[in-house]
Amino acid sequence: MSQIRRNLMLGEWVIVTPKRASRPFQDREQQCPFCPGRPGTEGDWRVLTLENKYPALSPEAGFFPLNEAIVMEAPGYGYCRVIVLSRDHDRQMESMSEDEVACVLDEYLRVFRELDSREGVRYVLQFENRGRSIGVSIDHPHAQVYALPFVPPRIEREMSQSARLWREEEKCLVCELLANELKSRDRVIYENNHFVSLVPFGARLPYEVHIYPREHCSSLADMESTLGDLGMAIRDTVTRFSRVFDENAYTMVFHTRPSGEETPYWHFHVEFYPPWRDRTRLKYLAGVESGAWTYTNDSSPEDKARELREAT
Amino acid sequence: MSQIRRNLMLGEWVIVTPKRASRPFQDREQQCPFCPGRPGTEGDWRVLTLENKYPALSPEAGFFPLNEAIVMEAPGYGYCRVIVLSRDHDRQMESMSEDEVACVLDEYLRVFRELDSREGVRYVLQFENRGRSIGVSIDHPHAQVYALPFVPPRIEREMSQSARLWREEEKCLVCELLANELKSRDRVIYENNHFVSLVPFGARLPYEVHIYPREHCSSLADMESTLGDLGMAIRDTVTRFSRVFDENAYTMVFHTRPSGEETPYWHFHVEFYPPWRDRTRLKYLAGVESGAWTYTNDSSPEDKARELREAT
Repeated sequence: MSQIRRNLMLGEWVIVTPKRASRPFQDREQQCPFCPGRPGTEGDWRVLTLENKYPALSPEAGFFPLNEAIVMEAPGYGYCRVIVLSRDHDRQMESMSEDEVACVLDEYLRVFRELDSREGVRYVLQFENRGRSIGVSIDHPHAQVYALPFVPPRIEREMSQSARLWREEEKCLVCELLANELKSRDRVIYENNHFVSLVPFGARLPYEVHIYPREHCSSLADMESTLGDLGMAIRDTVTRFSRVFDENAYTMVFHTRPSGEETPYWHFHVEFYPPWRDRTRLKYLAGVESGAWTYTNDSSPEDKARELREAT
Repeated sequence: MSQIRRNLMLGEWVIVTPKRASRPFQDREQQCPFCPGRPGTEGDWRVLTLENKYPALSPEAGFFPLNEAIVMEAPGYGYCRVIVLSRDHDRQMESMSEDEVACVLDEYLRVFRELDSREGVRYVLQFENRGRSIGVSIDHPHAQVYALPFVPPRIEREMSQSARLWREEEKCLVCELLANELKSRDRVIYENNHFVSLVPFGARLPYEVHIYPREHCSSLADMESTLGDLGMAIRDTVTRFSRVFDENAYTMVFHTRPSGEETPYWHFHVEFYPPWRDRTRLKYLAGVESGAWTYTNDSSPEDKARELREAT
């Protein structure tokens, strides 16, 4: 059973899960567990959600309220799911039709809705890890969902930044950033009716890309009618990456609002963090990044936006 | 010239330095730039501090006060130095005599003092990146020093955690943590007269090790008389790592107090972040870590402390 422990030095929760260390690392030679016909993937489906077989968190741990002032450790309560994005082992997002992409986004929304209202869930984190170079062991297109009993620290940080501007100037931070980016256009990569993708002004990573909805909205549940356009913006980003890198690799994270909290200042967005400095060389995170959380981005966000804009 | 840019979403400064992308990556075949007799390393020395040839920050940029409420970008002012720890290309800390280690610590102190009082310096970050697996291109033992015109976010985070306990309960956070660890001893690895090394209760990484001074003190400048013992604690940690990993690799960071600020609550310490899950397998940081800053540590800190304690 995993634990949730308080790291007092940083004021954050850490998931301590020794049993996961024994999870198998998928070999290229082994049969893929997500291909149709394997245990749990039988039958007819286009997109499929599975329980994570080696979950960091589990509902069986039982919900335990995490009050950081008094709780130092708690059972590892939560949900870990895998969304298999395609029946086809090699059909990554960039090879999918508009209709297939729409199915993927519908499933993201369905799982979000299901977990968002569960007891004790304070944040539904939806993300995709892709590429051997970031340690992914299964190539079959898949995303993950962690329903957490706490709000993760990066989200807390964005919340405090957004809440302050909302309180002091009655403005949404993402709406402001987006308006500025659309004025200068130096870092904009792609636009459709409802979404804009760009390299942010203060990008920590060379190929960091954000996708912002034009309208102020806080979660997938508010975007049912525009999900198709979100899928197109995601497919566009992933396609550009596949042209710019020798091996496509990235982490994609949906930054949604916390569950069961009033956060009118929150503006949903998607963030991509590819591990590359250029076509073939990795950007390593070492002393300055891990020790101080100060990022040295050895590229100009404007140059990288141009490179991605031209990768069509 | 590099820039310092504000990342508004996270409320932090990012160093944007496109020119560094062209720095050469040291080949095993090329001559080592830190071995004696190369440009800048001539003459008689045991430990040598050099200017970083590809600095992320430079004093020539000119000091520009960073007021986050009004400044969005500024010239990349600061200092980047390299401390060459040994004349011998293969003489890592674990092979050094007590006297040699003392020379290294004296140099850390000398450089800290020199930069700590410079105009516009708000934090002197001293760290060592080691090992090909975290992207280090030069094997010759060396550390780095970044004198920053802002307090880095990880330090700010620890400051706010420590300051709160100091204010509310008149206690030092590290003194409290250390007293608890010495009571249970489950996670203690090594002790000498003035320092204790341990795996923290809420360790984010399997082999995260902290070294805490027993006495409340805020920087190397307060520890002149105990530097020898600090050196022994560092050498001990590095030696244990070399026995536990096939390839010794880590980031070591000195967490000192900010420059020119009154921070009575601050307790100096050293933190190590090795990239390994076990002897040969890397711990990758992906969606949950980079996207949410929530760490899943797939080991028990008590087990890892035992493993390091027994690695003698």
